[in-house]
Amino acid sequence: MASAVDHVGSPLRLHADRFFDPDPSVRRAARELYEGIRDLPIICPHGHVDPALLAENSPFPEPTALLIIPDHYIFRMLYSRGVRLEDLGVPTRDGSEVETDPRAIWQRVADQWHLFRGTPSGAWMSHELHEVFGVRERLDGESGQRIYDEIAEKLRSSEFLPRTLFEQFRIEMLATTDAAADPLPHHNKIRASDWSYGRHRVIPAFRPDALFRISLPSWAAEVRALEKVSGETIGSSEALVAALAGRRRYFASLGATATDHGVLEPYTAELAPEEAERLFQRARNGEATTDDQRRYEAHMLMEMARLSTEDGLVMQLHPGSLRDHNSAVWQKFGMDKGADIPVATEFTRNLRPLLNKYGSDPRFSMVLFTLDESTYARELAPLAGHYPALRLGPPWWFHDSIEGMRRYREQVSETAGIYNTAGFNDDTRAFCSIPARHDLARRMDANWVGGLVARHIIEMDEARDVVRALTVDLVRETYRFPAPDA
Amino acid sequence: MASAVDHVGSPLRLHADRFFDPDPSVRRAARELYEGIRDLPIICPHGHVDPALLAENSPFPEPTALLIIPDHYIFRMLYSRGVRLEDLGVPTRDGSEVETDPRAIWQRVADQWHLFRGTPSGAWMSHELHEVFGVRERLDGESGQRIYDEIAEKLRSSEFLPRTLFEQFRIEMLATTDAAADPLPHHNKIRASDWSYGRHRVIPAFRPDALFRISLPSWAAEVRALEKVSGETIGSSEALVAALAGRRRYFASLGATATDHGVLEPYTAELAPEEAERLFQRARNGEATTDDQRRYEAHMLMEMARLSTEDGLVMQLHPGSLRDHNSAVWQKFGMDKGADIPVATEFTRNLRPLLNKYGSDPRFSMVLFTLDESTYARELAPLAGHYPALRLGPPWWFHDSIEGMRRYREQVSETAGIYNTAGFNDDTRAFCSIPARHDLARRMDANWVGGLVARHIIEMDEARDVVRALTVDLVRETYRFPAPDA
Amino acid sequence: MASAVDHVGSPLRLHADRFFDPDPSVRRAARELYEGIRDLPIICPHGHVDPALLAENSPFPEPTALLIIPDHYIFRMLYSRGVRLEDLGVPTRDGSEVETDPRAIWQRVADQWHLFRGTPSGAWMSHELHEVFGVRERLDGESGQRIYDEIAEKLRSSEFLPRTLFEQFRIEMLATTDAAADPLPHHNKIRASDWSYGRHRVIPAFRPDALFRISLPSWAAEVRALEKVSGETIGSSEALVAALAGRRRYFASLGATATDHGVLEPYTAELAPEEAERLFQRARNGEATTDDQRRYEAHMLMEMARLSTEDGLVMQLHPGSLRDHNSAVWQKFGMDKGADIPVATEFTRNLRPLLNKYGSDPRFSMVLFTLDESTYARELAPLAGHYPALRLGPPWWFHDSIEGMRRYREQVSETAGIYNTAGFNDDTRAFCSIPARHDLARRMDANWVGGLVARHIIEMDEARDVVRALTVDLVRETYRFPAPDA
Repeated sequence: MASAVDHVGSPLRLHADRFFDPDPSVRRAARELYEGIRDLPIICPHGHVDPALLAENSPFPEPTALLIIPDHYIFRMLYSRGVRLEDLGVPTRDGSEVETDPRAIWQRVADQWHLFRGTPSGAWMSHELHEVFGVRERLDGESGQRIYDEIAEKLRSSEFLPRTLFEQFRIEMLATTDAAADPLPHHNKIRASDWSYGRHRVIPAFRPDALFRISLPSWAAEVRALEKVSGETIGSSEALVAALAGRRRYFASLGATATDHGVLEPYTAELAPEEAERLFQRARNGEATTDDQRRYEAHMLMEMARLSTEDGLVMQLHPGSLRDHNSAVWQKFGMDKGADIPVATEFTRNLRPLLNKYGSDPRFSMVLFTLDESTYARELAPLAGHYPALRLGPPWWFHDSIEGMRRYREQVSETAGIYNTAGFNDDTRAFCSIPARHDLARRMDANWVGGLVARHIIEMDEARDVVRALTVDLVRETYRFPAPDA
Repeated sequence: MASAVDHVGSPLRLHADRFFDPDPSVRRAARELYEGIRDLPIICPHGHVDPALLAENSPFPEPTALLIIPDHYIFRMLYSRGVRLEDLGVPTRDGSEVETDPRAIWQRVADQWHLFRGTPSGAWMSHELHEVFGVRERLDGESGQRIYDEIAEKLRSSEFLPRTLFEQFRIEMLATTDAAADPLPHHNKIRASDWSYGRHRVIPAFRPDALFRISLPSWAAEVRALEKVSGETIGSSEALVAALAGRRRYFASLGATATDHGVLEPYTAELAPEEAERLFQRARNGEATTDDQRRYEAHMLMEMARLSTEDGLVMQLHPGSLRDHNSAVWQKFGMDKGADIPVATEFTRNLRPLLNKYGSDPRFSMVLFTLDESTYARELAPLAGHYPALRLGPPWWFHDSIEGMRRYREQVSETAGIYNTAGFNDDTRAFCSIPARHDLARRMDANWVGGLVARHIIEMDEARDVVRALTVDLVRETYRFPAPDA
Repeated sequence: MASAVDHVGSPLRLHADRFFDPDPSVRRAARELYEGIRDLPIICPHGHVDPALLAENSPFPEPTALLIIPDHYIFRMLYSRGVRLEDLGVPTRDGSEVETDPRAIWQRVADQWHLFRGTPSGAWMSHELHEVFGVRERLDGESGQRIYDEIAEKLRSSEFLPRTLFEQFRIEMLATTDAAADPLPHHNKIRASDWSYGRHRVIPAFRPDALFRISLPSWAAEVRALEKVSGETIGSSEALVAALAGRRRYFASLGATATDHGVLEPYTAELAPEEAERLFQRARNGEATTDDQRRYEAHMLMEMARLSTEDGLVMQLHPGSLRDHNSAVWQKFGMDKGADIPVATEFTRNLRPLLNKYGSDPRFSMVLFTLDESTYARELAPLAGHYPALRLGPPWWFHDSIEGMRRYREQVSETAGIYNTAGFNDDTRAFCSIPARHDLARRMDANWVGGLVARHIIEMDEARDVVRALTVDLVRETYRFPAPDA
């Protein structure tokens, strides 16, 4: 048997100054600025947490089901080094066999944990293990099963119920992302519950993408689902827009302040009503091409912007990801399996119709994201530094990282201005990683602003205002959230 | 009433080491290098100062008309946060009403001055207020009117006449930018004046863009203006080239050493004379399309390069800005209102015809600018590191900034070589900001070269040569300016 | 006469901490990490050293023929500042006269040596002069002839024979790059020699590009050469593939572990056999267009990947260089004369067919390179962070530099993961520069990883593993080289 001493692996440490620039004058300023924002409430205006989690408030499952199997940031990295997704327990679409022993999966991950050195996933997991689960040794092949036991034990305690963690994380507001036809039962249940802390803090966001993808075989079923939930027949493009307008109002009635739109390219164009209708009917006949869809999506983005000027919902646009690049993985395991790959994205010409029509309208607000960093300084910063309606969302997805945040601030701020950015969002479906992600972002903001102080570009009193704005003020303002004491 | 103490806001300070890297060894080297170039003369080979300013030498108007209303760097940022251009006094094309109270405008800017934190405009204005106007408190809503008074008083004194400032700034050479058909009355007046310091230091630059834009309704009037000033009938493309050649000689006779060309894409192509003529005639008939214009511009860039091999004028090329993105702003306020947005730009293929024909010709010299930083390391540095005629202009427009300069040096220098860059130019119409802009550039050059010293990439004696080259030697050489004692 | 003292120019110094970040905590970590890898064997999995050098083991020629005339990194920079290639001794295709005095050429370079300040060529040459040739004064116009003498003397000694240097450099493995039809006489000669240290360390790499360029006039001769060496008639596309498969086996029998493919764009597409055959026959008739070639190259890359799954050769792909941009230089001097200019490159869509078919095949391994850094974070890192077969090659060509390496690590690592990169290769034809290039890379890796330690992103024990992996482990693994003691 192993002795007690053998049980202790390398210590897991979170250094108080982690991620800060090592230069003493930057670090001193960063530390001071971070102290001022570390304990501010967490605001999550955009993410993918399952609302059922908070509606049910059931205990989380064991560690592997919680931390590994649903996290494509984790399993893609192991896949990239030759570990089969089956061996990581990723469920197949046809129900064919995969590894079902959570400890075996956990061990495979632990054995390869060095792959996450220098990655944001590695940094987040360290924070999560240390701060949420109290783990004090580094994850590796030797320590894996001990750490598994430690987390498993915690997950069985009432302190680790989702709502308890939500309060302990001090989340001020958490927006989920929900399909247009979703009847939002979980949001209704949360609102109707006696959970006083959380019931007005968990809100939906309106994501109607599926209704615009008229070339996909799945489109007809999406329309039928929308018909069912809205109780209207949708026989025309006009009727579709009307149904969407109704759903937007319904989402807003449950607290939603934003819509969310994912497209391959951010092409916008206002079509004549007859053309929109012709495309809709082609879709009804199953004849719509990918080019038809491109035009229809461009038109519906315009329509969504128009509706935003009426109902006040903030419009979020996320272009540039070519989804399901690996067809075999998609066929076997479905979407969101770490095989979405960015493409070069054009904003200046593509967004011109939309911004010309709505970009100076005080009722309209739009948040832009990109996976193509070459657009930061070239297109996005100049656009945000001109159009009143435009704010730049934080570095997204692959760029939600230490270096990604640095590049974003350095390339965006001088031209867009700090105050045309929208603060941080975690964009995560991994609920327990929320504090880790916000902490990393706060550190990187403090570090960047600390660098401005150390280079005498701004003074410390200004810097304190800036980091507070990046952490809470600009998020609330951009997403039209109520003031915290409202 | 406010007491005397109440009148003192936060102090405005320019730290001696501002913008330098905080690392002590870099800072020490940067400071030493900066000391060696700080007081070198200012050379302005490319800019947009109105020559009337120096021809008339009238007192500057009050602060708002001098510093706010003409500066699209300033008002675009306020517009982007919801301040109407009308409320900032920006004149409308139809003369419709705008704010006319300069103090009210100034106050609106002062109230929002925090928007400029971390921006080059903020850094320039601080330098300008402190060094040119002697202001010692930070601009904000509270201090705004006091600072207005302070500047207004200065502007009434003879020490602040344009020519006095020109001499005080120690400007060695200042090139304006002038339309091909401009009779250059102000340059003639300056040359004919008794202003001994300045009369050979203010020179025009030849900008014929408007004559190449054959699809625009304004083209015919541009041709007529050129006919008038050149005294020739311009009935063919050949006649147009001949008239331009004549104007180039005229500009050169007033000291011009360079031409300047702004295009959306840097496409070059030598057309057969018949095709050029056909395009010209289509333009005369008002039938030229945008594609015709693209071809004609490509051809005329070739013609301009050819003329440069004859008259020795240095050819500057600025591609990549999609002008007047916001149609409503353009319709109401006209051009240069902060709504020009960059697009991705291709140089390798587009410039190949021109560089193949003239790029190795010792009589030819070309300076390239870009708004698409992804081309720095990919295209521009390799091109400049090969073609003898090519020099890279400094980081342009949105990239004329602390981080923009850093990216430029880091991405360009290793491949292009330091000595294939053209030094700094301020590209400004804001005369009083010239020292601020050159000081920032000198600091950033000293800082970057100081970093090379601190990393033992070059030695200090080499570094001193390099910063001097970047500040004066390469500018004079590139723009074929006379040696300073000539 | 000059006195002895006059003979001593500025000292040439290689600072022990050169290229490291000046911050003391980064530098301390970098230095420690560098110490741990400095003396590891040099592995050269990709390069252009002439195998005849090691087969013949003749003394190197005098300094100019060794260090200047064949090095396009050097002469392109002088050309870019107006020195004619003729005056640098670069041989012309038609044998027309060029400078033949090596001392005159050397002097021209020495006179302009300041042009290399801050360039990788400058850093490599300093290391080469100091470490390989023992030079202790800086190269400049004054010291040039003395340094020439010093090197010339060394080159005549037996310590400077190629094989002696190879051993002294402690090269573990050196791959050359060889045309598909090359009978590899030099490799055979080395293998048959009594050179025990080197005979299994010098291996070929298989480069069949010329056979895919069906629109070039030279294609027919390439096919004939392949027919000759393979002893088969190549009358169909199928026969071409069969002949290439045979050559691949032959290369592998001489130790090759990799193939190498240079294309303008990394387009891949699997053509129907009839279409491939039709393109082949069009080529035979001299009718193939550049578009035909684009399709055929796309198809042949698929075929090469398929063959790799059979013979295990690692597939290297280098897209994005527009070769021979300067037609006049190409006509007079031929290829590889410093006039290859990168273009924007697309990987996500272009590689999808190939990666879908082979990217998850455990028998397949692919190494990608790019000259378009905007693809690092946008396309290459996400692709490498997903597909098991994919590894990212080191920063290539223009980006094989201090800043280029920094950008590569910062932009690639967080998303791709450190362990999906392939370590360094020198890609050089300049044999004597090999230690300089590897030393610079090791320093930059140590510096980047040291920065991770200083920012508490990873710990020192992890960092030591990482730098060792980057220096040797990942190179051996990626290129399927035998373990060093095998």
